[in-house]
Amino acid sequence: MAEKEKLTLVVFHGGLDHAQAAFIIATTAASMGMEVVMFFTFWGLNIIKKNEGAIKSKGLMRKMLNLINRGGTKRLKLSKFNMFGLGTWMMKKLMKEVNSPSIDDLITMAHQMGVRLVACTTTCGVMGLSEDTFRSEVESLAGAAYFLGEARTSKVTLFI
Amino acid sequence: MAEKEKLTLVVFHGGLDHAQAAFIIATTAASMGMEVVMFFTFWGLNIIKKNEGAIKSKGLMRKMLNLINRGGTKRLKLSKFNMFGLGTWMMKKLMKEVNSPSIDDLITMAHQMGVRLVACTTTCGVMGLSEDTFRSEVESLAGAAYFLGEARTSKVTLFI
Amino acid sequence: MAEKEKLTLVVFHGGLDHAQAAFIIATTAASMGMEVVMFFTFWGLNIIKKNEGAIKSKGLMRKMLNLINRGGTKRLKLSKFNMFGLGTWMMKKLMKEVNSPSIDDLITMAHQMGVRLVACTTTCGVMGLSEDTFRSEVESLAGAAYFLGEARTSKVTLFI
Repeated sequence: MAEKEKLTLVVFHGGLDHAQAAFIIATTAASMGMEVVMFFTFWGLNIIKKNEGAIKSKGLMRKMLNLINRGGTKRLKLSKFNMFGLGTWMMKKLMKEVNSPSIDDLITMAHQMGVRLVACTTTCGVMGLSEDTFRSEVESLAGAAYFLGEARTSKVTLFI
Repeated sequence: MAEKEKLTLVVFHGGLDHAQAAFIIATTAASMGMEVVMFFTFWGLNIIKKNEGAIKSKGLMRKMLNLINRGGTKRLKLSKFNMFGLGTWMMKKLMKEVNSPSIDDLITMAHQMGVRLVACTTTCGVMGLSEDTFRSEVESLAGAAYFLGEARTSKVTLFI
Repeated sequence: MAEKEKLTLVVFHGGLDHAQAAFIIATTAASMGMEVVMFFTFWGLNIIKKNEGAIKSKGLMRKMLNLINRGGTKRLKLSKFNMFGLGTWMMKKLMKEVNSPSIDDLITMAHQMGVRLVACTTTCGVMGLSEDTFRSEVESLAGAAYFLGEARTSKVTLFI
C-alpha cells in the first residue's frame, strides 16, 4: 500500500496571523489525505500553551519571561497592526463575520484529523516549560533530530 | 519529455525586503528553466495590490483595515530599520545605485517569464478584497488546497 | 555509494532567535549525516559578520546603514521582547544556565562539521559589503542561482 505523503511544519513565529496560516495549511493538508506534523518552537510555543492558570517555572528570570511571554490562543496578537490590541480585535471580528474558524477551533479540528502537535524540547528547556504547560492536543515534546527525521521523509516542509 | 521542476513560494510577509527576496528567487528560478508559482497570503497580498485608487470593501472595519493596510509596491516598507521611511528610502536608493531592479520591474519580469501569481482566497474573504484589488499580472484567486496541490508536486517550496 | 541527503537553509532574518533556530537545525542535521548548506541573505548576514572592527563601505548612505545595521554575533537581538536589550540579555543567561551553546559556539561547531556557510552576493552588493566583512568560517559569496542549485538537489529546504 502506498504510504501517505507527509507535510511537516516548523512553527517558529507566534502571531495570530502565523497561527492561522499554519493551522489552515495543516487542516487543509489533512483533509487532502496527507499526514501532518507540526513542530512548535520558540514563540510558536505560545500557540499551544493552555489558556488557563499561571505557568510554573523555576527562578526569577524564567518567571518573568513566562509572565510577559504568557501565550495561549486568547493572548495571540497580530504580528503587524496590533495597535495596542485594536488590530487583533478587528481581525478576530472579521474572521468571525466570514465564518472563519477561530484558532481554538482549528486546533481541535487538526487534532481530530490526526495532525500531530509536537513541542520543541530545547526551547522548553531554556524557558523552563514542562509538558504540563501545553494543551491536551499536544502529543509530546521532542527535539530537532525528531523534526529532521520527519522533514526528511516529508514531501513538503515549511518554516513558518 | 521530462517535466519541468517546480518551485512554489508562499509569500506571507509583506515587507519590501520580503518582496525583493521572493521575486529575486522566483525570477532566478524561472531563468534556470523552473516552473514557478507564487502564492500570496496575509500581508504578502500587499505586494501585488494595485498602486492606484482606493480599495473598495464593505463595512466600516474593512474600510479602516484597508486604509491602514493599503499596500501596493509604492507603499512597501522594510520590515526592519524603516525609521519612519528613511531606511526604506535609503534601501531603494542603494538598490538603484547598483542597478538592482525595483519590485515593479521584478513583477513585470516574473510575469513575462511565466511565473504564476496567485492571491489567497481566504485572506481576501476576511479582508474584503476582490480580484479587482490586484495588479493585472495576478492570474487568479485560489485557496490553501490549490497551494498544497502545487507544493506536493514541487521540488522546492518556501514560506517567505 | 549513496549520496548524502542535503539540507539547505536560507537565513533571511537576523534575530538571535533566528540564528539559534538555524544553527541548531544545521548542526543537528550534520550530526545525523546530512550535507548542510546555509545561505545568508539580507538581515541574516548580520549573524556571520565579524564582531570586531568597523565595516568599510563606500558612500555616506552605506556607511550609515552599516553603522546602524552593524551585525556580528555579539550584537544580535531577539526579534521579540528585546526590551532595550533586557530580553536579549535574559535569553542569553537562560541559555547558558541550561548549557545551551552560544551562537559563536554553534558557528564553530557547524564549520567543524562541514556545514557550508555562504553569503548572498546581491545583498552584499546593495549594502556595500566585501568578503572581508565576514567571519573566517564563511566559505564564499554566491547568488540566488547558487542557492537554487543547492535547493533543487536538497531533501529539505527552509526559509528562516
